Formats: sequence, structure tokens, C-alpha cells
Amino acid sequence: MKLFLASISTARIRAKSVTDALTEDYVARASRYISCATQFHDSEIALLTWLERVAARTVPVLILLDSRGKQLSSDDFAEHLIRLRDSGVQSVILAVGPPDGWSPLARARADLLLSFGLITLPHNLARLLLAEQVYRAFTILAGHPYHSGH
Amino acid sequence: MKLFLASISTARIRAKSVTDALTEDYVARASRYISCATQFHDSEIALLTWLERVAARTVPVLILLDSRGKQLSSDDFAEHLIRLRDSGVQSVILAVGPPDGWSPLARARADLLLSFGLITLPHNLARLLLAEQVYRAFTILAGHPYHSGH
Repeated sequence: MKLFLASISTARIRAKSVTDALTEDYVARASRYISCATQFHDSEIALLTWLERVAARTVPVLILLDSRGKQLSSDDFAEHLIRLRDSGVQSVILAVGPPDGWSPLARARADLLLSFGLITLPHNLARLLLAEQVYRAFTILAGHPYHSGH
Repeated sequence: MKLFLASISTARIRAKSVTDALTEDYVARASRYISCATQFHDSEIALLTWLERVAARTVPVLILLDSRGKQLSSDDFAEHLIRLRDSGVQSVILAVGPPDGWSPLARARADLLLSFGLITLPHNLARLLLAEQVYRAFTILAGHPYHSGH
């Protein structure tokens, strides 16, 4: 299974991301456990178009970060990812949305709207949290002390 | 009203905090709106002892970050802070706990157990989120476009 940590972000937002190095650090750490990559899309339509191309080869699972979505604990998130892997899913796209939220089209396409809490976060911190939670999920599954140590 | 963003963190955790500069940046931005400072305590007992000293002069409000606590949206968090200010509270301590969570003693002393979500976060990211939410709260109250712009 391959994970794609996707972002809808304009050049303006991208230029502001001083947390990118931290995000990439978590992705690198997660890559010890799972194939994992970040990607940027200029718009929601660009993400959905890319998804259709992936879908021609495999059936990708789309998880959209949305504060109004389903809240999972870190343990439940780990459990969710491993269930996807065990059911033969080859690609999972975890995506942080545009500043004004996901469109009804994107929501309808999503397999899961995932919330990390009710608070609103800036785009770069949402990306950072997502990368940290992905890394944490695989340390939980591997029995690595990272999760219990915090 | 003065806000104290407190952390229970050992030297080991403190040395690892590569996000400190970002946290301090949000605190500096929040300081345009409210008196605001960060502080570290070596232990929970050190925090509670410091609190008793403050309490000799004023009645501080203690808010402990706890994933199992009450979840507020960013708007509700802003509303909560302004209600405290309007009711004449002079000091609010917002504290990120030790790695193994708050003791029953600290919980009993708290005026509010505040959750930003069910997920577990590393100490430095919890501090960063807290500082960002405090800044966001005062931009919401001031009608600054920061909140709606994300």
C-alpha cells in the first residue's frame, strides 16, 4: 500500500510553509514502515483529475481532512489504515483541503471525511499534523515506543 | 487579563523542541491583542506551586490541555476567553501536560479540561497548536481576516 499526503495549495500558501521541513521529516520517518509521499495540487479539480488517472490502474481510497468529519483517536486512525492495507487497498490519498474547505463534489467522492478536532488550523499546520499522525500510526502498529512515550 | 502558556517539560523534551520559534512567533503575534507569555515548569507540582503563589494575589483560571477534555471549536475557544476577560479574570494559565498526562490532583484543580481533538500529539506540537489557537482567538475577536482567510 502506498500513502499520498496531498495538499490543495496555491503558490501563495506554499511559499509560506515554514513547517515543510518538519512535515518532510515525519514523512521520511513514516517511510521506514510504509511507502509514503507528499504531493501538492493547485486546485481541488487537479487532485480529482489526478485521482481519476490513478483509478484507471487501481482503486484508490480518498480520505479528506475536514474538521466536521469523523473524529478518530491516534489508535483508531492506525487501526483504520491497517484495515485498508489488509483489505488489499493499494493507494490511499490523505488530503488537506483548500482554505475555504472541500466542495460537495470532493466530499461526495471521499471514502472518509476525517477530523483531527473541531479547531481550525492553518494549512501548513494541518499538513504537519497529518504527517505526524501517519508516522505515529505506523509506530503504534509496529509497537515502537514513540506513541506511548509521549 | 494576562495569559500564561505553560508547559510541563523536562530538559530532555525542551531540548528537542524545534518548533519553539514558531510557537514564540504566534505568542508575539497574540501579544498585539493580549498580554501573553510562555513558561516552562519542570513538573506538575512546580506548576501547581507557582499557581498557589499567583493565587495569593489574584484568582487565576487554570485550563489544562487534555485530549479527553471538552472540545471547543476555534470560535468557541475565542468566546470562552472573552467571557473570562469580561468577568474580570486577571490571569489565565493554559497548560500542556507531561507525557503521561495530568494527575488527578491537577485535574481536580483545573477550571477546564480543554481538548483540541482525540489525537495524541507530541508535546512541542501541542504547544504550537495552543499558541496558534490563542492568536487565532484574538484575531476572531478583533475581526482580523486571519481566521476566515484559512
